[in-house]
Amino acid sequence: MKLLVRIFVGLATAHFASEVMVQAADPLPSWRDNAPKQAIIAFVEKVTREDSPDYIPLPKRIATFDNDGCLWSEQPVYFQLMFAIDRIKQLAPQHPEWKIKQPFKSVIEGDKGTLAKIGKEGLAKLIMATHAGMTTDEFSNTVKGWLLTARHPRFKRPYYELVYQPMLELLAYLRANGFKTYLVSGGGIEMLRVFAEDVYGIPPEQVIGSSIKTKFELRDGQPAIVRLPEIDFIDDKEGKPVAINKFIGRRPIASFGNSDGDLQMLQWTAAGKGPSFCLIVHHTDAEREWAYDHDSYIGKLDEGLQEAKQQGWTVVDMKQDWKVVYPFEVSD
Amino acid sequence: MKLLVRIFVGLATAHFASEVMVQAADPLPSWRDNAPKQAIIAFVEKVTREDSPDYIPLPKRIATFDNDGCLWSEQPVYFQLMFAIDRIKQLAPQHPEWKIKQPFKSVIEGDKGTLAKIGKEGLAKLIMATHAGMTTDEFSNTVKGWLLTARHPRFKRPYYELVYQPMLELLAYLRANGFKTYLVSGGGIEMLRVFAEDVYGIPPEQVIGSSIKTKFELRDGQPAIVRLPEIDFIDDKEGKPVAINKFIGRRPIASFGNSDGDLQMLQWTAAGKGPSFCLIVHHTDAEREWAYDHDSYIGKLDEGLQEAKQQGWTVVDMKQDWKVVYPFEVSD
Repeated sequence: MKLLVRIFVGLATAHFASEVMVQAADPLPSWRDNAPKQAIIAFVEKVTREDSPDYIPLPKRIATFDNDGCLWSEQPVYFQLMFAIDRIKQLAPQHPEWKIKQPFKSVIEGDKGTLAKIGKEGLAKLIMATHAGMTTDEFSNTVKGWLLTARHPRFKRPYYELVYQPMLELLAYLRANGFKTYLVSGGGIEMLRVFAEDVYGIPPEQVIGSSIKTKFELRDGQPAIVRLPEIDFIDDKEGKPVAINKFIGRRPIASFGNSDGDLQMLQWTAAGKGPSFCLIVHHTDAEREWAYDHDSYIGKLDEGLQEAKQQGWTVVDMKQDWKVVYPFEVSD
Repeated sequence: MKLLVRIFVGLATAHFASEVMVQAADPLPSWRDNAPKQAIIAFVEKVTREDSPDYIPLPKRIATFDNDGCLWSEQPVYFQLMFAIDRIKQLAPQHPEWKIKQPFKSVIEGDKGTLAKIGKEGLAKLIMATHAGMTTDEFSNTVKGWLLTARHPRFKRPYYELVYQPMLELLAYLRANGFKTYLVSGGGIEMLRVFAEDVYGIPPEQVIGSSIKTKFELRDGQPAIVRLPEIDFIDDKEGKPVAINKFIGRRPIASFGNSDGDLQMLQWTAAGKGPSFCLIVHHTDAEREWAYDHDSYIGKLDEGLQEAKQQGWTVVDMKQDWKVVYPFEVSD
């Protein structure tokens, strides 16, 4: 972890410094003074002021965040798929059979047309070939190595730099007000845990995600946890409230998402007895980030947007409501 | 929860008061000054003194505790089975078919001989009939009601009073030294969460246990999580390190158990790179509690005791090492 910590240090320092310093002045400096920012601050003040009728005691201040498209970007494809693709290429010399076997053939040849049509089954094959068959420690080390070397195709930067500055401020603001912040992602739990603490300030025990099965065994007398090529849980849609109930055992009072995959998490949050806050990040900024919603293959947002309007949830218009998208826009 | 909180308040007050007050003097007043107490204190001082070569930073101070037989008693049968039996009797009028169907017939008739031989399949039937088919909220309320009314057959007291005073002090002592304390139990996660916070000071998000599957659905437009009659995960033996890895994502530095079901959790803890502490509670006190180990049907301790000797883990001789077993011995 030390190497990763060093690399992340610029990002992390800015981030944690803001956690301490910024609160006195404007807690959300990268947010324009529009409705979403006002709604966030009004909610936090309402549930944390001890004389408020909506006061919520500390242990119940649980906030859950989706990751892909909510805390970091998810285009042109989920970053975890980019990891799988890079890893397949790296492992290819040890797997000569992949040259004639799909979906590996398309990955190795960079055949994006065929790759776009591999479907869920093909995707599962890529994931299992790259995420299973090693110990948990080995997998973490592979992910760390990838994060340090891989570059995003559009921005030519490490993937962990494509996080949203306004959301980092929001995480810090909530924590400064006694909230416990959780990741609840469709992404792989063990991949998320490699960077969530350094990048988001979210410790491993507050990371929830999709998982494959694992097995405890003694290898030469040494205990190891081995990753098996079998899906354990998909933390998406109906899976999100199920996982929140399993891992946290309390209902969140605030939830943040960006796609229809987050809808059930927001519904579960909104249906709590006391005050609650639901927010959807709407990707409207093709220039600084990407613009997509109801017809997108990745991060489809259709039902969620309709329900947000009906229920009065907060919708962030990325282009209008955020002064800054990525930290590097201000720090470079 | 409020009713339960009121009922638990005597216990909880004593417990949390000790958390604050007792640290200055003796942090473990119910422990005799024998080897286990000395080993606990030596370990905690070693990993928390900033000038110690074995210093461990706060986020890594994870301690995991088994529940049955480690924090509360487990005789004459696991308390969760007592809940299932009481619940079957309560539900029997709505299930006339149970009168002629095993294992329900034996439960209703109080036929302990047959009940003792129901095996895993019979047990699973009892669990599913009493733990599934309702929402999570309904199940929690049922458990609360049972905890408030049920009495242990030997002590004629609520089950939650059969917790070990020395272990409550140990939990408080570890937390006062920056440890995050977790339950890692073979018992049902949603049952444990009903009382773990009030009785042990362990919040729901730090409770890990066995689980059945659940499903998110809209009931009359209202989101609900429904408990299904299907095993999700058994948090015992090899399952314990697997669950620790899944829920916490960090390796504990201290683990506490009492049976062979805890062995793999202790092995996983002991195999960490830095300093670690493993402790086994040995039930040796037939007078104040129970005495059992290698040939017990419940809480069998055989392999674990052997490995403890080989590895130099701490073994608590309940009769010799604990001045007090239950809180009511001193508070009544």
